[in-house]
Amino acid sequence: MSHHSPGYSIVVRLRYPDLPSYLGRITSVIGKVNGLIGAIDVVDASEKQIVRDFTINATDVEHGEAIVEKLREDSEIEIIHVSDRVFLMHLGGKLEVNSRVPIKNRDDLSMAYTPGVARICKAIADDPDAAFALTIRRNTVAVVTDGSAVLGLGNIGPKAAMPVMEGKAVLFKEFGDVDAFPICLDTQDVDEIVLIVKAIAPTFGGINLEDISAPRCAEIERRLIEDLDIPVFHDDQHGTAIVVLAALVNALKVVKKSIDSIRIVINGAGAAGAAIAKLLISAGAKSIIVCDRTGAIHVGREALNSEKQWLAENTNAVKDSGSLSDVIAAADVFIGVSAKGALSVENVKKMNTDAIVFALANPDPEITPREAGEHVRVMATGRSDYPNQINNVLCFPGLFRGLLNVRAREITEDMKLATAYAIANIITENELHPEYVIPSVFDRRVCTAVTDAVAKSAIQSGQCRRDIPRKTT
Amino acid sequence: MSHHSPGYSIVVRLRYPDLPSYLGRITSVIGKVNGLIGAIDVVDASEKQIVRDFTINATDVEHGEAIVEKLREDSEIEIIHVSDRVFLMHLGGKLEVNSRVPIKNRDDLSMAYTPGVARICKAIADDPDAAFALTIRRNTVAVVTDGSAVLGLGNIGPKAAMPVMEGKAVLFKEFGDVDAFPICLDTQDVDEIVLIVKAIAPTFGGINLEDISAPRCAEIERRLIEDLDIPVFHDDQHGTAIVVLAALVNALKVVKKSIDSIRIVINGAGAAGAAIAKLLISAGAKSIIVCDRTGAIHVGREALNSEKQWLAENTNAVKDSGSLSDVIAAADVFIGVSAKGALSVENVKKMNTDAIVFALANPDPEITPREAGEHVRVMATGRSDYPNQINNVLCFPGLFRGLLNVRAREITEDMKLATAYAIANIITENELHPEYVIPSVFDRRVCTAVTDAVAKSAIQSGQCRRDIPRKTT
Repeated sequence: MSHHSPGYSIVVRLRYPDLPSYLGRITSVIGKVNGLIGAIDVVDASEKQIVRDFTINATDVEHGEAIVEKLREDSEIEIIHVSDRVFLMHLGGKLEVNSRVPIKNRDDLSMAYTPGVARICKAIADDPDAAFALTIRRNTVAVVTDGSAVLGLGNIGPKAAMPVMEGKAVLFKEFGDVDAFPICLDTQDVDEIVLIVKAIAPTFGGINLEDISAPRCAEIERRLIEDLDIPVFHDDQHGTAIVVLAALVNALKVVKKSIDSIRIVINGAGAAGAAIAKLLISAGAKSIIVCDRTGAIHVGREALNSEKQWLAENTNAVKDSGSLSDVIAAADVFIGVSAKGALSVENVKKMNTDAIVFALANPDPEITPREAGEHVRVMATGRSDYPNQINNVLCFPGLFRGLLNVRAREITEDMKLATAYAIANIITENELHPEYVIPSVFDRRVCTAVTDAVAKSAIQSGQCRRDIPRKTT
Repeated sequence: MSHHSPGYSIVVRLRYPDLPSYLGRITSVIGKVNGLIGAIDVVDASEKQIVRDFTINATDVEHGEAIVEKLREDSEIEIIHVSDRVFLMHLGGKLEVNSRVPIKNRDDLSMAYTPGVARICKAIADDPDAAFALTIRRNTVAVVTDGSAVLGLGNIGPKAAMPVMEGKAVLFKEFGDVDAFPICLDTQDVDEIVLIVKAIAPTFGGINLEDISAPRCAEIERRLIEDLDIPVFHDDQHGTAIVVLAALVNALKVVKKSIDSIRIVINGAGAAGAAIAKLLISAGAKSIIVCDRTGAIHVGREALNSEKQWLAENTNAVKDSGSLSDVIAAADVFIGVSAKGALSVENVKKMNTDAIVFALANPDPEITPREAGEHVRVMATGRSDYPNQINNVLCFPGLFRGLLNVRAREITEDMKLATAYAIANIITENELHPEYVIPSVFDRRVCTAVTDAVAKSAIQSGQCRRDIPRKTT
């Protein structure tokens, strides 16, 4: 069943006779074609006519067009204009760069610019780390992509990727008060990307890599972590892994199992799948099998790329081969980062009792909660219209906020674990419930908890330039 | 004589007995050591003691320190704290990145991010130019440097250059309402810089190159102009040239001479000198001689770099050789982009009657207005404490505002001339005066006039994607 979404909302401006029965007629026509009406606003009224804006949520683009066509059939109603709310919102982009200092007169100018600014330059020339106090490095992260793996759209390139990167920057600011700027690169060459990000690093306090396709993303991230002294984080890998771990920690409390005793199957061996496996191993998981389209990844399988070779050597100790349908038997946990419908009901029934299923394929999960039904004890997806949404925004704003507050040099495994536990522990034992194992993205306690946990872990690791976090709230 | 400047201001917090005569004592001590007191603010008061903040402008850093030392000598006055206003202003940098869209609930999220944003991406994938409407490309410029020629500080590198680039971005926003973001590059290799700027271009609607040393800056700019379809502008070259031309146009009206009949000497053959010569030729100048440290540049001189070779072939038709002292004879105009004291009073006396002198060396001009005295009819410098300040901020905000409004692809010679004339024509014939040939940077009419002139020129040239400028004021 399709859902109405503001993601597909339109604003239709109609002019019609200002008489009884017309509004009922219009709203009924919209309802007959399954349009969900939101706001209705009067725009103009004259003696005999009235103009109103109708905001209507549709289920997809074609549905929105169908609604307009239906309204067109009524000759007494004039369609003045159809606007798409999402397009309107995006006009001019979603970000602006503002000055934090006023420039009202020559005094201001001589402090923000010449000659006053020269002294700030000299101070940094004498002590480069002073840039973390005196420039936007203190609070700014680059959101870097080459547009090769954007959402579910694939390789759409840097120009088309910009709205997503701007959106990411919006989330950094709104959820973590982190200044973030998009950098969309017109190259997909690994060496060039590494060269470019290294070159722009003096501008930033951290680098968030986004929507760069596997397997290149792993090498790019690895080389940048080696060469830079600011944190580098590929959110599609590690953000997903961290939030999955947080949800799993709580789900295991609900079903009263421990992470080192459970059998975990991960479906999908791309960037996210590999990162999830690695983090779960760090968290104490002993039995993980990762499947790709061919089947279970195991030592002895041929033609494995380096990521999958690592998985073969570090998971699936019993060398299970076979398809997902085979290895799912008696599994306690299924984590899907693959595609719609990849997990059938039959397969779910083969799982152990009190099964945990995280079906994260986007936009349609490997199995829906309805299909999984009573066969699954704790169910999570990536969608906001089901309980237990596993959403990376629970992680990256607070993570970078914490890193910036202590001017961390890198992100350690321990910081990732600390982040996951901080997210999980927002939910108390009393509140834990099969349908509440992960906090809502709008729960403001998450960012603060993550910030504190990351800062603390960074200070303990010594991988930072401040041993007292900067206070930001 | 040194000038007090807020660029060297300190805030001194003092605690002292709240009794008559103390304030007079303090202010007198400060005055005795030539400190210029600005604001005095009460911070705290108890029964017997009072705490005040004294904002004091000094003439340089050492002077500020001397003032504090003098205050320290008084045992009844406690110095609680000394802050540097400029440093305080720079804490955390001078820019922030803000969201233009609210994220209060799931509706907002599904429009600014998934699933709504996917449709915006698809629209751009179908039509890349749609990015100029739907992303920050519509209004955003990169301020790019490698830190190799920053102000008068030279090659201080990218980290130390950040405060200047942030300041430039502040000026873009405050004067032109253009979103600008600094990009400080950790490389000085020409090929790498060209590769990097080409790669980040999808994010921006224009590129402003800044503080990149000659002769590399010319090649970098040339190659980027060739390869990119958005405007590329090295402000140190062309911004200076445009504002110089604007001032010259008005100065020539004051002395009633025409540009094609005058003899012009430019001292300094770096980036700015060459660009000034080229623009004056475009504007109709027929007789220009450019000098470097060796002397006049002419055909036949050996070991000229490519910029200087161009100058040799396109200026100084009579092949004058010799030093500045020789070629300045009978010159109508001297333009200095060189160093302090390069123009002596003797040399000024050799110039034609109604001499025009633009002494732009920073921070100290080739000759001061006082030294030039009555020998010069119209005098300009780069400083704000003399009349006729030639300041690039008269140009670049309005220039890029105009370019962005029509989504221009490049900057033509005609647009540069149009900009110069627009700046000059702010001053009416009635208002023209030897001490008023260039508008104040705070004259808000300048940006609008430049914006309109640039947009009009761009539309005429066909080098733009909109033939009606977007309205921004």
